[in-house]
Amino acid sequence: MKKKAIVLFSGGLDSTTCLYWALDKGYDCQTLTVSYGQKHEKEVCAARQIAEKLGVKQHFVTLNLPWLSASSLVDEKQNIPDLTMEEIESGHIPTTYVPGRNLVFLSVAASLMDAIGADAVVAGPNAVDFSGYPDCTPAFFRAATEAIHLGTARGVSQGVEVLAPLMDLSKADIVRLGAKLGVPFGLTWSCYSGGDKPCGHCDSCKLRARGFAEAGVVDESVR
Amino acid sequence: MKKKAIVLFSGGLDSTTCLYWALDKGYDCQTLTVSYGQKHEKEVCAARQIAEKLGVKQHFVTLNLPWLSASSLVDEKQNIPDLTMEEIESGHIPTTYVPGRNLVFLSVAASLMDAIGADAVVAGPNAVDFSGYPDCTPAFFRAATEAIHLGTARGVSQGVEVLAPLMDLSKADIVRLGAKLGVPFGLTWSCYSGGDKPCGHCDSCKLRARGFAEAGVVDESVR
Repeated sequence: MKKKAIVLFSGGLDSTTCLYWALDKGYDCQTLTVSYGQKHEKEVCAARQIAEKLGVKQHFVTLNLPWLSASSLVDEKQNIPDLTMEEIESGHIPTTYVPGRNLVFLSVAASLMDAIGADAVVAGPNAVDFSGYPDCTPAFFRAATEAIHLGTARGVSQGVEVLAPLMDLSKADIVRLGAKLGVPFGLTWSCYSGGDKPCGHCDSCKLRARGFAEAGVVDESVR
Repeated sequence: MKKKAIVLFSGGLDSTTCLYWALDKGYDCQTLTVSYGQKHEKEVCAARQIAEKLGVKQHFVTLNLPWLSASSLVDEKQNIPDLTMEEIESGHIPTTYVPGRNLVFLSVAASLMDAIGADAVVAGPNAVDFSGYPDCTPAFFRAATEAIHLGTARGVSQGVEVLAPLMDLSKADIVRLGAKLGVPFGLTWSCYSGGDKPCGHCDSCKLRARGFAEAGVVDESVR
């Protein structure tokens, strides 16, 4: 029987590549998409469209954590910053950081995994081309994995897999992997701003554009 | 300046004792109370009443995670089991287990800690007189602590404390500690069923009753 996996799925480039990766590895996938007040709720629509196309079971949850409005990714009064690549790569945590986001997301995914008896959680953190968020590092991911192993019935009774297949890839590597797996790049949404077209100015747009350029692949989402 | 602590606070005996403990240790406390569909929403009212009495700032969040209805603590169609003390202490995970609850709660508390710039998270897991839930063990708590240290801006930049002062205490020890600190036992609510009076049949009532009996303290909540 196929192993069941919960894939944390925002509808962006990275998590869509994760979903295609997990399907390619033979997992029976269910997606988990979290709304938390992000300006780019448009990614939730992208997630829905991609998962429907693939015919995988989808879970959507809304987290109302009022304090997340500290982040410019959530707060309507704050602009998404337009940083240079040097600033993005400085290691400084930008205002788009959402406090504890990946820890909360992984925990919620682990809860779903435990409730439905799945065998794996798949997530898309990346520690190469990223914005300096603390919750995207291999060290954090290892600790969170250990907490999931020890703090769920499923983890304790039979062990579970917690997989981050993109952790050590550059954005260009992710684009190459996505292209190989047939990821519909044009359907994915990475921009933090959530307008009609990707803004081209946020960290996410800039990292994505550089990745596609380096991989020599056309990004259909910005055509 | 006083250190700021987020106290995970259900309004039960253990978390109320934690709150009094943290105040006694000199922390500037804010409470975090999570509704997740538990039958004993009455504990949320207890939490509100106790925190108001103490004049501490309160945070309430509601998590709508539909799959938690796998637990008899949430599912209206399942009865809360009436187990013997031997069954409670058998190490078997009972139907009241809520998948990944403490991991999700600690993550949400860590997110709040990170957002408001607090210095500590305080929680009440207990590995002595408990129902065999996997997410109440010292090993799980250590791993979750590490994940909070590594996966939050506050943890990475200056370190934070993650405290579980009741971990190694028996229920009788917790009652003795609570009595010493002036915990208003009559206001706390531990029963899983949430009727007018504690049911006396659920794990939580039985462990609580034995603790008070062993400590030789009268439990005002069942008078």
